[in-house]
Amino acid sequence: MPASPTAGPFTLDEIAKRCGGTVVGDGRILIRQVNTLENAGDGELAFLSNPKYRGQVEQTRASGIVLSAEHASLTTVSRIVSEQPYLTYARAATLLNPTTEAPPGVHPRAEVDARARIAPTASIGPNAVIGHDAEIGDGCVIHPGAVVGARVSLGARTIIHANAVLYADTQVGSDCVIHAGAVLGADGFGMAETPAGWLKIPQIGRVVVGERVDIGANTTIDRGALDDTVIEDGVKLDNLIQIGHNVRVGAHTIMAACVGVAGSADIGPRCMIGGAALIAGHLRLVEGVHITAGSFVMRSILKPGRYSGVFPIDDNAAWEKNAATLRQLHTLRDRLRALEKNAGRSPTP
Amino acid sequence: MPASPTAGPFTLDEIAKRCGGTVVGDGRILIRQVNTLENAGDGELAFLSNPKYRGQVEQTRASGIVLSAEHASLTTVSRIVSEQPYLTYARAATLLNPTTEAPPGVHPRAEVDARARIAPTASIGPNAVIGHDAEIGDGCVIHPGAVVGARVSLGARTIIHANAVLYADTQVGSDCVIHAGAVLGADGFGMAETPAGWLKIPQIGRVVVGERVDIGANTTIDRGALDDTVIEDGVKLDNLIQIGHNVRVGAHTIMAACVGVAGSADIGPRCMIGGAALIAGHLRLVEGVHITAGSFVMRSILKPGRYSGVFPIDDNAAWEKNAATLRQLHTLRDRLRALEKNAGRSPTP
Amino acid sequence: MPASPTAGPFTLDEIAKRCGGTVVGDGRILIRQVNTLENAGDGELAFLSNPKYRGQVEQTRASGIVLSAEHASLTTVSRIVSEQPYLTYARAATLLNPTTEAPPGVHPRAEVDARARIAPTASIGPNAVIGHDAEIGDGCVIHPGAVVGARVSLGARTIIHANAVLYADTQVGSDCVIHAGAVLGADGFGMAETPAGWLKIPQIGRVVVGERVDIGANTTIDRGALDDTVIEDGVKLDNLIQIGHNVRVGAHTIMAACVGVAGSADIGPRCMIGGAALIAGHLRLVEGVHITAGSFVMRSILKPGRYSGVFPIDDNAAWEKNAATLRQLHTLRDRLRALEKNAGRSPTP
Repeated sequence: MPASPTAGPFTLDEIAKRCGGTVVGDGRILIRQVNTLENAGDGELAFLSNPKYRGQVEQTRASGIVLSAEHASLTTVSRIVSEQPYLTYARAATLLNPTTEAPPGVHPRAEVDARARIAPTASIGPNAVIGHDAEIGDGCVIHPGAVVGARVSLGARTIIHANAVLYADTQVGSDCVIHAGAVLGADGFGMAETPAGWLKIPQIGRVVVGERVDIGANTTIDRGALDDTVIEDGVKLDNLIQIGHNVRVGAHTIMAACVGVAGSADIGPRCMIGGAALIAGHLRLVEGVHITAGSFVMRSILKPGRYSGVFPIDDNAAWEKNAATLRQLHTLRDRLRALEKNAGRSPTP
Repeated sequence: MPASPTAGPFTLDEIAKRCGGTVVGDGRILIRQVNTLENAGDGELAFLSNPKYRGQVEQTRASGIVLSAEHASLTTVSRIVSEQPYLTYARAATLLNPTTEAPPGVHPRAEVDARARIAPTASIGPNAVIGHDAEIGDGCVIHPGAVVGARVSLGARTIIHANAVLYADTQVGSDCVIHAGAVLGADGFGMAETPAGWLKIPQIGRVVVGERVDIGANTTIDRGALDDTVIEDGVKLDNLIQIGHNVRVGAHTIMAACVGVAGSADIGPRCMIGGAALIAGHLRLVEGVHITAGSFVMRSILKPGRYSGVFPIDDNAAWEKNAATLRQLHTLRDRLRALEKNAGRSPTP
Repeated sequence: MPASPTAGPFTLDEIAKRCGGTVVGDGRILIRQVNTLENAGDGELAFLSNPKYRGQVEQTRASGIVLSAEHASLTTVSRIVSEQPYLTYARAATLLNPTTEAPPGVHPRAEVDARARIAPTASIGPNAVIGHDAEIGDGCVIHPGAVVGARVSLGARTIIHANAVLYADTQVGSDCVIHAGAVLGADGFGMAETPAGWLKIPQIGRVVVGERVDIGANTTIDRGALDDTVIEDGVKLDNLIQIGHNVRVGAHTIMAACVGVAGSADIGPRCMIGGAALIAGHLRLVEGVHITAGSFVMRSILKPGRYSGVFPIDDNAAWEKNAATLRQLHTLRDRLRALEKNAGRSPTP
């Protein structure tokens, strides 16, 4: 198990006070870390959120449990009873596992342009490169090998993980986390056809990211062609996502891994986009649209709700038969129509 | 808005002379930058290509507009009338926004092998690594943290962005752009099954890239198993694309983001592959094949044209019903056939 | 063709002795490299595995051929007759093309924490960064720009390619290959909803990788939320794959490029997952499940076998008609049912 340092221990009382909920049992016990019901031991806090795992409450060797009032009587272990056990647990996990402190200052092996402005409390790791006129805010952490281009601006406490790349002019707000290998601000894919081949169109917009945004490992967000590509506050993007030029992603929208969003799509706030979903360009999703993983959104969606479009999986033999029939589906409908017509006539004696 | 330096200003006359089209109105006005009809202001050149936006021509505050003869009378603003407004605009944007100059020479914090040959006009950034016997052509720019392996060859004016990796023996022609995090020449995925597990087969081919090729951020192109993987002249690849070993991508073919091409596929010239399309291995696409985004190409396509295979999206309830029925599609066809047979017999009184 | 150094030459006899099979013809000929039947020349060994290429055996100018007894009489060239020609060839290719030796020791431009433990036979390249308390085993090679976090452990002979990133606490066994740009141990995507937006849940599990595992370029494997994400011995992952937190990938399972595996999926040993397949979270695949490229696995699969779910590709006009009909498939079934009912009544005279 990880040997990362934690911030605790805290008493169960202290955790309930800071994270929500009411203690039942001995509130003075010391909690050092969180863990699953199955694996938790002495000094560890587990939680029950999904009722499917209620059977594990009896066997757990956790020192404390977070659960709902409905399940509070399943155990005699000291516990925090909460209306939102998962949220209380999430806060406790955050309390016990603060982001690792990085030493303030510029590592002697970082390469920082003389015209960059680095807050004294920021930490710039070895082999990081900071371009001219970049501004790095208070408490930012730039991990090893990250490249921050000219005129980039980072708000306070934003973390850029190892080998991520921010092209020139990218703007990122405060309290963001950009994971390793992510690339912000590469050229959007704009090409004009000519007799001699494709002519690349200069991409002079920027990537502009709000506050409290998470961007996953190896995710790519292209700069705008003329206007900016915009990621609003509180957006959470998983790994290996592609965001095309001039896309807007509305506040608090969340996307699972491998999603692709084509250029100029306008995605509203508080949407949920499942993994590997594909969103075509120049369309609009209103607030509160949920897209099932693996679906391809080809048209605007103007009504909140859940949308799907996934071919059902089957054993290969059944799939082959159904897929072959599917290619003739249109003629099947025509044949059905003919039969219906025929049936309509048949009663005539 | 971006503060990147531009090359202008140019008079509208000068722009028309260099980029095509005829000036109507005052050709002496100075143009400093391009912008959208909606956002352009003083000193900026906008364009109308998609008739959908013709309404914006009246309101624009642009100093100049590029448009077609058909739309030339929509405005009294100084304008360039062109048979191909988008192409003229693209050229004007390129004229006004040249690639940023990089200082020639090797940064003291670059690590260049003594046996590498670097053209004196090339620029090697901090923390870039150049292996032995690599050849870097005139005017190349190697951005920070890029790793260029042994015996790699780069033609003139090719740009390798930050943290991209070119494995040993990769060949890249002139005037290419390889974006951040792209990986060329990693091992192809060749494995032989043995009782003890998978045995990796050495991948001794190379990646060979032609001239004027663009490769997007975090795109991966594997080296060949025995023969080379080949990307021909003028190919444009977007971000997060995977090209398997021994693939050939024909000249001027363009692929949107997240496409996957399996090993030994042979893709003809001037194809267009939509985002997240998937192309199976060991098959052939002739010149001029267009694949819709999200489609899976499982067989060779020997006739130019547009091909699609995408499950239509719907609200979730409708999708669930249709997907369930789809899994019985084959029996539906059989039932229809039985009815038709029956209908054939039924006329007998 | 590549100029990489090889280990040979070897006599055909020596190759048969080490790699399996029986020599027919002159076993004293010298073999320097492997190549295709089509391109092989003097000093090169080709192979015939796929009978589709048997016609090339006659024309080949290879010095030697590996083939099965069934095809042994197609040629008079010196040959190795093997029950498994592809496997014998794979071993010969490995013999002739050993992994390039890297000079042991720490490059002066590597940044190694004083508390890291580096085996004297390991090779640490320029601009590599090794964190505190990391352990790097015998014969490991850390390529330029790779970042190895605190407390990471690497078994003997493991290779980390350029600019790959291993977050703190990642464990990797011996004889693994991690390709350029891969990211192991970034935060899993765990978020709790709050009225103020998504609250990120600390991810305190690790990534634990077994022995003889290959991980492709720009592939991402997230650390566990509480328990670890586990990749067992002999697993082979291609490029641009996403493995979510707390996934288990069983021994000797192989995945082609662009696959996405959502959190907590439990994939058995010896599975084969085709390219760009998508596996939903919290489900189970037993040993020996094969998933066709492009399929979306939405439910557990508890029986070995081959499973598919891919929309068939067609020319665009046919696709449009069939896709439109598909959206009404459910009503088609209802109409068919009504006709059947009607047909059942119709025999009444």
